[in-house]
Amino acid sequence: MTASRKRLRLGMVGGGKGSFIGGVHRIASRIDDRFELVAGVLSSDPMRAAESAADLGIVPARAYVDFKVMAKAEAKRADGIEVVAIVTPNHMHAAPIIAFLQAGIHVICDKPLCATMAEAQMISEAVKASDAHFVLTHTYTGYPLIRQARKMIADGELGQMRVIQVEYAQDWLTQTIEQDGQKQADWRTDPAKSGGGGAIGDIGTHAVDLLCFVTGLKPEALLADLHRFGDGRRLDDNAHILLHMQGGAKAMLWASQIAVGNENGLRLRVYGDRGGLEWSQENPNKMCLTIDSEAKRILTRGGVGSGGAMTDWTRIPAGHPEGYLESFANIYTDTADLIERKGGGALLAGIRSGLEGMQFIEACVNSAGSGGTWVPFQQLEG
Amino acid sequence: MTASRKRLRLGMVGGGKGSFIGGVHRIASRIDDRFELVAGVLSSDPMRAAESAADLGIVPARAYVDFKVMAKAEAKRADGIEVVAIVTPNHMHAAPIIAFLQAGIHVICDKPLCATMAEAQMISEAVKASDAHFVLTHTYTGYPLIRQARKMIADGELGQMRVIQVEYAQDWLTQTIEQDGQKQADWRTDPAKSGGGGAIGDIGTHAVDLLCFVTGLKPEALLADLHRFGDGRRLDDNAHILLHMQGGAKAMLWASQIAVGNENGLRLRVYGDRGGLEWSQENPNKMCLTIDSEAKRILTRGGVGSGGAMTDWTRIPAGHPEGYLESFANIYTDTADLIERKGGGALLAGIRSGLEGMQFIEACVNSAGSGGTWVPFQQLEG
Amino acid sequence: MTASRKRLRLGMVGGGKGSFIGGVHRIASRIDDRFELVAGVLSSDPMRAAESAADLGIVPARAYVDFKVMAKAEAKRADGIEVVAIVTPNHMHAAPIIAFLQAGIHVICDKPLCATMAEAQMISEAVKASDAHFVLTHTYTGYPLIRQARKMIADGELGQMRVIQVEYAQDWLTQTIEQDGQKQADWRTDPAKSGGGGAIGDIGTHAVDLLCFVTGLKPEALLADLHRFGDGRRLDDNAHILLHMQGGAKAMLWASQIAVGNENGLRLRVYGDRGGLEWSQENPNKMCLTIDSEAKRILTRGGVGSGGAMTDWTRIPAGHPEGYLESFANIYTDTADLIERKGGGALLAGIRSGLEGMQFIEACVNSAGSGGTWVPFQQLEG
Amino acid sequence: MTASRKRLRLGMVGGGKGSFIGGVHRIASRIDDRFELVAGVLSSDPMRAAESAADLGIVPARAYVDFKVMAKAEAKRADGIEVVAIVTPNHMHAAPIIAFLQAGIHVICDKPLCATMAEAQMISEAVKASDAHFVLTHTYTGYPLIRQARKMIADGELGQMRVIQVEYAQDWLTQTIEQDGQKQADWRTDPAKSGGGGAIGDIGTHAVDLLCFVTGLKPEALLADLHRFGDGRRLDDNAHILLHMQGGAKAMLWASQIAVGNENGLRLRVYGDRGGLEWSQENPNKMCLTIDSEAKRILTRGGVGSGGAMTDWTRIPAGHPEGYLESFANIYTDTADLIERKGGGALLAGIRSGLEGMQFIEACVNSAGSGGTWVPFQQLEG
Repeated sequence: MTASRKRLRLGMVGGGKGSFIGGVHRIASRIDDRFELVAGVLSSDPMRAAESAADLGIVPARAYVDFKVMAKAEAKRADGIEVVAIVTPNHMHAAPIIAFLQAGIHVICDKPLCATMAEAQMISEAVKASDAHFVLTHTYTGYPLIRQARKMIADGELGQMRVIQVEYAQDWLTQTIEQDGQKQADWRTDPAKSGGGGAIGDIGTHAVDLLCFVTGLKPEALLADLHRFGDGRRLDDNAHILLHMQGGAKAMLWASQIAVGNENGLRLRVYGDRGGLEWSQENPNKMCLTIDSEAKRILTRGGVGSGGAMTDWTRIPAGHPEGYLESFANIYTDTADLIERKGGGALLAGIRSGLEGMQFIEACVNSAGSGGTWVPFQQLEG
Repeated sequence: MTASRKRLRLGMVGGGKGSFIGGVHRIASRIDDRFELVAGVLSSDPMRAAESAADLGIVPARAYVDFKVMAKAEAKRADGIEVVAIVTPNHMHAAPIIAFLQAGIHVICDKPLCATMAEAQMISEAVKASDAHFVLTHTYTGYPLIRQARKMIADGELGQMRVIQVEYAQDWLTQTIEQDGQKQADWRTDPAKSGGGGAIGDIGTHAVDLLCFVTGLKPEALLADLHRFGDGRRLDDNAHILLHMQGGAKAMLWASQIAVGNENGLRLRVYGDRGGLEWSQENPNKMCLTIDSEAKRILTRGGVGSGGAMTDWTRIPAGHPEGYLESFANIYTDTADLIERKGGGALLAGIRSGLEGMQFIEACVNSAGSGGTWVPFQQLEG
Repeated sequence: MTASRKRLRLGMVGGGKGSFIGGVHRIASRIDDRFELVAGVLSSDPMRAAESAADLGIVPARAYVDFKVMAKAEAKRADGIEVVAIVTPNHMHAAPIIAFLQAGIHVICDKPLCATMAEAQMISEAVKASDAHFVLTHTYTGYPLIRQARKMIADGELGQMRVIQVEYAQDWLTQTIEQDGQKQADWRTDPAKSGGGGAIGDIGTHAVDLLCFVTGLKPEALLADLHRFGDGRRLDDNAHILLHMQGGAKAMLWASQIAVGNENGLRLRVYGDRGGLEWSQENPNKMCLTIDSEAKRILTRGGVGSGGAMTDWTRIPAGHPEGYLESFANIYTDTADLIERKGGGALLAGIRSGLEGMQFIEACVNSAGSGGTWVPFQQLEG
Repeated sequence: MTASRKRLRLGMVGGGKGSFIGGVHRIASRIDDRFELVAGVLSSDPMRAAESAADLGIVPARAYVDFKVMAKAEAKRADGIEVVAIVTPNHMHAAPIIAFLQAGIHVICDKPLCATMAEAQMISEAVKASDAHFVLTHTYTGYPLIRQARKMIADGELGQMRVIQVEYAQDWLTQTIEQDGQKQADWRTDPAKSGGGGAIGDIGTHAVDLLCFVTGLKPEALLADLHRFGDGRRLDDNAHILLHMQGGAKAMLWASQIAVGNENGLRLRVYGDRGGLEWSQENPNKMCLTIDSEAKRILTRGGVGSGGAMTDWTRIPAGHPEGYLESFANIYTDTADLIERKGGGALLAGIRSGLEGMQFIEACVNSAGSGGTWVPFQQLEG
């Protein structure tokens, strides 16, 4: 006898023991109880895949070792998965995304979209050809106050956009730990696995996506000054980027993984001709708002004076902090709504965001490669 | 065919539509995937109970309307619940706790223990007479940095305890919203439902529990100055309390629900003869540590320099904020470990904490009733 | 040839080499250029007095070694001092205050008023008998935002006063440095020099004065729990105090000199039935204001939305921090205005504040001496 | 009869009624009592000049209306000024600087050096030709923690410099208040009075000077993206600048006067391969230091663990905040030491800093004028 309420049946590719982001996706999928993990290719190593599956309560028959086999088998089952989460390193995104989309299974994929622009185009074609949904987990756009900020700007509360300062600073690559075999560092600094971007791909894509999400504006041109400070490092670990946004706004973006004293310092400041906003991910339950000629106000997640736009994406009262996992859960819950046709799509990143992220990486690499010059940023349709 | 990994079967009493804390318990139970909600008396109103059960995926046969019936029925089932969460108002704690304990079912109960000392004694007897575990959800003791603080103090890093300042300030009862029928305010300000304590019961018990948890010390005497600022309010909404702790330390405790500008301001500062600690619940991922004659340091949840004591209770890296729900999840996960004999008991609040909380309320009421005099605080055994 | 604009001629008693507060008074007197130091008994040691005078540009003829001689001599001079600053330890306040008042010279005295209530009464008589002004330097009431807070409360912006939390935490007496001959610690922990109060006299009097200044309310009763944590220390180094204020407001006051990690942590939080304010001396250029049911606002010294009440006491635009010395300078400048009959008196502490501070110390000592009981606080006239 | 101790005789050009920075210079000169203002051309309007002089205690004979007359007259007097402060708008710096230097009088000048590079060269020649000292008041380099930071970096505590983020954000030009006749806005947005730089000249020069002061590094190349957001504004009000520093460090500089919610937000973050520092001018008494693989520490002005380098430039104990005026006073006191041959010169900005500031403005304008390209930054001798 099963419960009367339906949870979406979820599969996972990647995310076995030792993974960071796979576990995060699983918690995010559980928080609002809209998904149930029932199948997976959790590792490319059969033994580890089986162990990981057992740990997670996946029955052996659905603990696959090949994602193509999984896509076909699950598509045939009456109780097959409805949606799959892809949580592998970047260079292993494209093939499973395409396989599951072709099998008619919705896809949730960690960012960035993939490792190369060629892969990105193939994924894009697959999305167009499929009736299934494709969602990219730009985690930070799930924070309630970020969604509040987006709405306030869309409603004109800050006036015409002028200046945006966005930064994402970490310090975990201060030393060249990839040379000591640290797993997370290894693939993130390896061009074959990450693609052409180091910090710009891993965290810069988050920063630019947040910038665009909140302001509703796309870049028209950018200039990137990329550097590798780690001795022998193969990809950028610090990026200084200037952007010209639609409508005349100007932005600065800093992404660094060698800024000692920064753990996960994603910060956004937005200034229009009527007001300014400041938000920091490490204390995400508050946001500063200043309307020109008024005192600065502190808006809190769910708090007085912060407006109604965020109440759909928060679970507990103001003063009870929510964090990264709840932000991630909002992405999953929106996806469940999207799949179940209850709305949810408006705030989710899809293939267009994925392509724009890849464009961003490519444009940065091109700009830096030509000595730090301005390069145009082509607008995508749709 | 079921999944290979076992989740503990969980029931719930209370927590139907419109409840705050019931939903929190459910999320907390899911985050680490150790529980599955399968039965409940979610409301005393049969229609609402049924609707709430359906929403939560509880099959109709296990959507009870009477907790005594539920306790007996579940105890007989081969797949009956192993543990039940009690999330009703205070005056409805004792009866279900006792019923489930007598049925051999583990009990997780929201704080405070109950409404009266007489009930508390009955519960205490029931706990002694049962083989089942009893856990009180003192949420805030689940925060990783609070557990780190406890360990540091136990290890002597701050030296001999001298002064502790603890406060829990809110503002949601600034106006007498209970007179307008606000549900949460209604029962929390009603002596028949809450017992003799208003702010001291609702949040003061959290504050004193946190004080004792972190320092490892119990009060020996206290003096309380209680007040009702809301016009016509029936229970205290502001409490100023002095405590003499074991070992000579002195503490100040402030609990208020009328302090405008405080959402959920639980703050703890602890000073020994070698060092001091400062922590605030609203930004729980950092803690300030000062060792005498050294610069102040900022410890972060999971961060460099913060020691290993917390890593068991955190899921994501430093800089990725965890919050209230993850803290609550730690209580649930410890409980799962306790039930499954994997440890977990050392940091959980049980019947003794529950009794001490009731003692605290009673002592405050007695002190205030005699004009603000010192009253002793009797030490419990065990 | 002298300058056309007149500066008030200032003398000083105390404040020679090695003094802390004497130098502070001198800087404060210079900032707004209303005083000129021309005479002094800078030390009881003639050699040191002479050296200190030379350092400060005081001519030898006016570098006295006896304050009585100085009072008489200066009173006779056509260019004699108009005002004197008393910056000696507490037990050496009364005699010079009285001598200068009797000589018709205005007196500025560091707090607390003196060492004993008997001295306080004598000073009070001398003030009544003299036409000269008497000003007590309660430094912290000079901060512009504190004056803004006072005005806002007087104007009813926070509504009826309910709860006040005030604290003054330091850590410089964590170890018993007075036993190693540290000069500042030596006299402040010596009952013969400081009077009956340790932390309560040195910093508790600041805290209670700030509380009264901002709210406009006096205590009606208090209860004090005093302790000496330093081994062998002769005066309190930690004080936990409850106060019942006029009009039904309740206050908590914490003064400590052994709270490791606190440098000069004077903090004030005030809650009425319409709003709340929070301010901390270590970052004195901002204050948080929350009006019930509105978002918290950050008021800045001189900034937008912070009102006009403070502009008289600030020199530079918002965002350019002023600090402790400018706050102290406001006391001096108000005193110059008072002497020159340009206003200035309304916000200055005089003999009444001095007596109330002494009452506070006495009441605390009495309450603690009787085991921590409530003692009444008699209202002074005038 | 005059005091036995000598104060340096100070003159002033500019700084009459309605001026901002003139009053700041005067307070700064008084705080440590090393200067006495005795002469000036306080306004180009004779009536206002006379009134301002009277207000400041300057005798009529030394209240000049022409700085050339003043320079000659004072040079002849036995009690003539030893040093002059130039506090006029930028385009009125060069002529008085040169006149006083030629008269053998030391010059203290507000930044930036002047309005045009041609003027800068003339000033530079005059400095070379004169025995008098020339000091440029880069105020923010007077903050004790900034000097501590400089020393720590020079001592290698942060390791090899990698990344520097410096920003100076204000919001007072959000609206085009210069078009309403606001005096401060008027000349700062007028190319004829300010020179080619708006925000880059007024505040960008502070930011780049701070960057160079703290790191000990000069720019080798820069790229500037300048913009005028105010409608009809004639000079830049927002600047996004990338810099390549000596030794391979990379920097980002943001200067803005239209960033709503920023009062005087000068912030510096410096990252080396061993550690990072963070400091903000609006709360200048603390600085965060993180050594790689250690917890973040908070250094306070004069506090424990902050080292001895700052004690020369602070007057009061940790926890007693000093601010902008004390920082400015440090520049004046160093200048007095320099003139009196007691040291003081090492940390002062002189002609070289002035020229570099002008180079910075010119390079920014050139870069922006060519569409945002990299331009070299020529190293000056000396």
